[in-house]
Amino acid sequence: MLRPASYGMAKWIEPGADARAVHGPVTGALIARAGGAPLDVQGMLDWARTVGGPALRAMGFHDRARLIKALAVYLGARKEELYAINPLTGATRRDGGIDIDGGIGTMMVIASKGRREMPDGQVYVDGPAEGLSRGGTFIGQHIAVPLQGVAVLINAFNFPVWGMLEKLAPAILAGMPVIVKPATQTCYLTEACFRMIVESGILPEGAVQLVIGGTGDMLDRLGAQDVVSFTGSAETALHLRTNPALMRNSVRFHAEQDSLNATILGPDVRAGSVAFEAFIKEAANEITTKAGQKCTAIRRIIVPQSAMDAVSEALMARLAATTVGDPAAEGVRMGALASAAQKADVLDKLAALAGETRRLTGNPEAVDLIGAGPDGAFLAPTLLCCDDPDAARAVHELEAFGPVSTLMPYRDTDHAAALANRGGGSLVASLVTDDPQVARQVTLASAAWHGRLYINGASSAVEATGHGAPLPHMVHGGPGRAGGGEELGGVRGVLHYMQRTAVQGSPDVIAAITGQWQPGATEIKGPQHPFQRTFNEIEIGETLHTKPREVTLEDIAHFAEFTGDTFYAHMDEDAARANPFFPGRVAHGYLLLSFAAGLFVQPDPGPVLANTGLNELSFQKPVSPGDSIKVRLTCKRKTRRTGSYGEVAWNVTLTNPEGEQVAQYELLTMVAYTR
Amino acid sequence: MLRPASYGMAKWIEPGADARAVHGPVTGALIARAGGAPLDVQGMLDWARTVGGPALRAMGFHDRARLIKALAVYLGARKEELYAINPLTGATRRDGGIDIDGGIGTMMVIASKGRREMPDGQVYVDGPAEGLSRGGTFIGQHIAVPLQGVAVLINAFNFPVWGMLEKLAPAILAGMPVIVKPATQTCYLTEACFRMIVESGILPEGAVQLVIGGTGDMLDRLGAQDVVSFTGSAETALHLRTNPALMRNSVRFHAEQDSLNATILGPDVRAGSVAFEAFIKEAANEITTKAGQKCTAIRRIIVPQSAMDAVSEALMARLAATTVGDPAAEGVRMGALASAAQKADVLDKLAALAGETRRLTGNPEAVDLIGAGPDGAFLAPTLLCCDDPDAARAVHELEAFGPVSTLMPYRDTDHAAALANRGGGSLVASLVTDDPQVARQVTLASAAWHGRLYINGASSAVEATGHGAPLPHMVHGGPGRAGGGEELGGVRGVLHYMQRTAVQGSPDVIAAITGQWQPGATEIKGPQHPFQRTFNEIEIGETLHTKPREVTLEDIAHFAEFTGDTFYAHMDEDAARANPFFPGRVAHGYLLLSFAAGLFVQPDPGPVLANTGLNELSFQKPVSPGDSIKVRLTCKRKTRRTGSYGEVAWNVTLTNPEGEQVAQYELLTMVAYTR
Repeated sequence: MLRPASYGMAKWIEPGADARAVHGPVTGALIARAGGAPLDVQGMLDWARTVGGPALRAMGFHDRARLIKALAVYLGARKEELYAINPLTGATRRDGGIDIDGGIGTMMVIASKGRREMPDGQVYVDGPAEGLSRGGTFIGQHIAVPLQGVAVLINAFNFPVWGMLEKLAPAILAGMPVIVKPATQTCYLTEACFRMIVESGILPEGAVQLVIGGTGDMLDRLGAQDVVSFTGSAETALHLRTNPALMRNSVRFHAEQDSLNATILGPDVRAGSVAFEAFIKEAANEITTKAGQKCTAIRRIIVPQSAMDAVSEALMARLAATTVGDPAAEGVRMGALASAAQKADVLDKLAALAGETRRLTGNPEAVDLIGAGPDGAFLAPTLLCCDDPDAARAVHELEAFGPVSTLMPYRDTDHAAALANRGGGSLVASLVTDDPQVARQVTLASAAWHGRLYINGASSAVEATGHGAPLPHMVHGGPGRAGGGEELGGVRGVLHYMQRTAVQGSPDVIAAITGQWQPGATEIKGPQHPFQRTFNEIEIGETLHTKPREVTLEDIAHFAEFTGDTFYAHMDEDAARANPFFPGRVAHGYLLLSFAAGLFVQPDPGPVLANTGLNELSFQKPVSPGDSIKVRLTCKRKTRRTGSYGEVAWNVTLTNPEGEQVAQYELLTMVAYTR
Repeated sequence: MLRPASYGMAKWIEPGADARAVHGPVTGALIARAGGAPLDVQGMLDWARTVGGPALRAMGFHDRARLIKALAVYLGARKEELYAINPLTGATRRDGGIDIDGGIGTMMVIASKGRREMPDGQVYVDGPAEGLSRGGTFIGQHIAVPLQGVAVLINAFNFPVWGMLEKLAPAILAGMPVIVKPATQTCYLTEACFRMIVESGILPEGAVQLVIGGTGDMLDRLGAQDVVSFTGSAETALHLRTNPALMRNSVRFHAEQDSLNATILGPDVRAGSVAFEAFIKEAANEITTKAGQKCTAIRRIIVPQSAMDAVSEALMARLAATTVGDPAAEGVRMGALASAAQKADVLDKLAALAGETRRLTGNPEAVDLIGAGPDGAFLAPTLLCCDDPDAARAVHELEAFGPVSTLMPYRDTDHAAALANRGGGSLVASLVTDDPQVARQVTLASAAWHGRLYINGASSAVEATGHGAPLPHMVHGGPGRAGGGEELGGVRGVLHYMQRTAVQGSPDVIAAITGQWQPGATEIKGPQHPFQRTFNEIEIGETLHTKPREVTLEDIAHFAEFTGDTFYAHMDEDAARANPFFPGRVAHGYLLLSFAAGLFVQPDPGPVLANTGLNELSFQKPVSPGDSIKVRLTCKRKTRRTGSYGEVAWNVTLTNPEGEQVAQYELLTMVAYTR
């Protein structure tokens, strides 16, 4: 008997006297007692806000990303303990892989995105600076900073590990403490993973807390700096989001709800082709994986009228081969639903769908079980067919959250997109086609209705990541029935736990806030050439001004001959003059870049190791023979990396003798930490 | 007597028999009858969704941006008609400038951002492609497309023109039709401007409709593809956002609510300094402009305890010099509140604040009026003082929406930030300081509570744009009490009317959807060198492969000597070998770039006019003497511009004989439309 505990204010809190009995879905036996503990809800919120929040915010994004990576590595080393518990939920090992390895992998990607795509500091810089004044003394910069409250993460029963980790990692990376609240049916698996997080000692105190059972009046106590992130049913979401405190205080509420996801077989795909086989395989997988209990599972299979027979035959053959039974038993492909209640709900929904559909497969309750008896929450994979999807309504609105999907015909791609959109907003729609123009048409017609569009075909069939798999790189969530929320998507998902603020001020003010030098901000003169300074020594704003160098006609002619770049604007005075950009023969842009490097480089070995790239180079004015250029090079941004050197970005401008800027760019270098 | 009409389904609908009487605030006389017309609400929604939406979506972002610019120019030419009506609202000409010229200017900026920062096409590309597979056959790309519903734009009484235009322009640019619903008190001015929009004939039919008076059950009829964008009071916002249909259908609801905005005088600022004077001037302006009826007005003036006397004296002197009266009369600096009801509400709030504050100025109702009598909705600028702001509550939560502000003392910057945050979320907080580190401290402590932070000081005092002025470049909105919404901020505000969708597919699929070539997508061989092809002829994917060129040790030595870039990695075998990046002497990155140009350039005059820049250049592998490089150059993206040429961006890669990529970048060129 499992007794999953809550964790608040640095203490484990055992289940109370009136804990709820949790019955396992495989045999129906009692497997856990959960919840019912008297929680100090306000104490937990205060703990997060006053202990966890400040500790997290004292770090930078890269510091927190390192913690998340360390935690993922730690969990990875102990993951078999989780796989050992996993079959109790009804899930096969393969199902568990999506949950357990999937959750750990998501943390790894989030951590990596944090290191590569967020600044090495406490302030996220959102987009370029905005010029707000003619003289440049007043500019704008959008930033994002962590919210100062707590993130309440409420998860569904189907992914007890992934569900926690995919919400926890972005929140922690943002700098927000979390309170995790799993669904009670599978909370023991969430608790086992959460316990590892606590035991790892990696996160600062107060960063994570856990509520097993009900949250009491927690939502009533949330305010402007808090976030609720919810995954589950539309009904529960509606109940929670209409909480008066959430409404009154404009509390962010991100909902990710089960939706009536669709897949479309392109009109160009012929039976037996690679694309057709990919379509059948994915459709069958989405019915059977996790016994169809996935918010992204395919509920509607939309195929050309002419392909209905071929698709139904191929799908039914695949489903018939699916073995069902005890998820821990050898050879079982599909396990149980999460509970007897879930099974009863699916049967109710099937009854409700019966008016609009006919069943292509047999009785869902008549299924040969491997290693399991009649008391488990098992169902056979069930394929329905709706012959008139335009007239139908329930197939587009009513979700049987189990191994159930409905096949329906379409006339043309616009009709197919319209049917997909009839779901009223979904997490994902997929399309299998080998014609990119079909992909474009369906996208323009339906992208607005779906949080994700998954498009597969022969050229991508081997590497495609699966209709039902939310990836940490891509946003997960969708409009309307899918809840209108969004999570993941790399840094996008992190920003949901931060406040975007428009900052206006002088270049020096913006530089101080962002930790990045801005044109117009103070230049610092260092004690020696900046390329002789270590990463640790170089200051933001440290500047080198070079002497000028004349660019002669001979230089231009020689450069043209040497490089082969004999473009007429460099070679032929009359032809150049006829070009709207040039007053006559001009220097090559690459000649200017090369001369600039010659002016600012320091030839001797030193901490600056290499020039690794350039960003946003613009050639702003032509340079004519006889003009001279000089260079200003200023340290803009420093980013620590693992190893012995970090990246230093320099703002570089080239100016002519009139003081006009002729080119500007950002120069990227790798610089050793120490000498 | 004005009779502002609604406009729906391409028809003007006159006020009905039970239209509401609108009394002007200057004399109290009846000036308009508005509303009460029987509107076909469902007909208007359908009109927007089936006529306006498809017409807008058939265009691209740049097409729509051009319409918005044309409309701004048109309105600008007729603006004096609006200024003629403006005094009826109680506003001075200067107040009207914020509303009328401010609204038109906002459209201009939005149009310009659309042209410069959005693609020339129908699909917005959000961020870089994501590699989702080892072999590169399956990738991810976030896009945004217009929502397929209608945007209902609900505005407050204080900015009848700006309020409409600043919401309308981003929605139209996104590709969404709008229904405008102004506050009834000043709807006649909104209607006058709206009428010009219709008369201009610039927007397609169905793009804009207008509701004067109540919206009936319009909100009950909104769904997943619709948006409500609201500006006004917290109470009204709460009433609207809890509409069951909005909740059930996850309808986007953006709220921008009046908030208890604060300004902080930095601890470093001495009385009499430039920064001090800027502080006093802005604080006084925010009290008197629009008679304090601005959602961004300063309600709390937070100053060091030691500066309380200096600030109160200076502020009171300025306020005492403010002339009040008929906004149309000569010499009047501050006009009337919007209505007698508004005046009564402000007096109620003043009474409620009396328990926590003392009045520094005189009786707000005892005011010398210029050109106006006792029946108008006039109040004197009123300054309160709260000596114990920690114990106080009403000053942080209760807004007198008129020429009223409260002065309060702070101990240190953390205390100042904490007081600013006590507003529970605001649209804007400001800080006046000459110390960038004070700016950073206050930002870290309080940015999470404010949608905008406005920081001014001596160096920016001349050009700073004003605490209370929302700019189209910067986001406007704030957390908590400010409504939790966001608008403007350039393209950010446009995306609120679009769906972000994560698209996954092959590079060819992503290229077809975005109109931008992707690495891995099909390369097209053109009939001649791409630089001899016009903008109109060049196809996305058109590719040039060059022959290889060897890079010799002599080339490297010569380039070093010619350019002066004698960095040791190019010159000294042993020193280079000691560098972690290099196997020995290597070619300069700029030498590779220059040779690449020599390989791909076509020397003769032709449609490609100039190389204007480079983006995201990365040097990926060193090139040693004796290695050769060859170049692939592929048309990635085309962007039309006004004039005779457009921008073509090329994806360029350099590879070594082993087929390894040694550098890649995006090359920007200007290309003539025709020969």
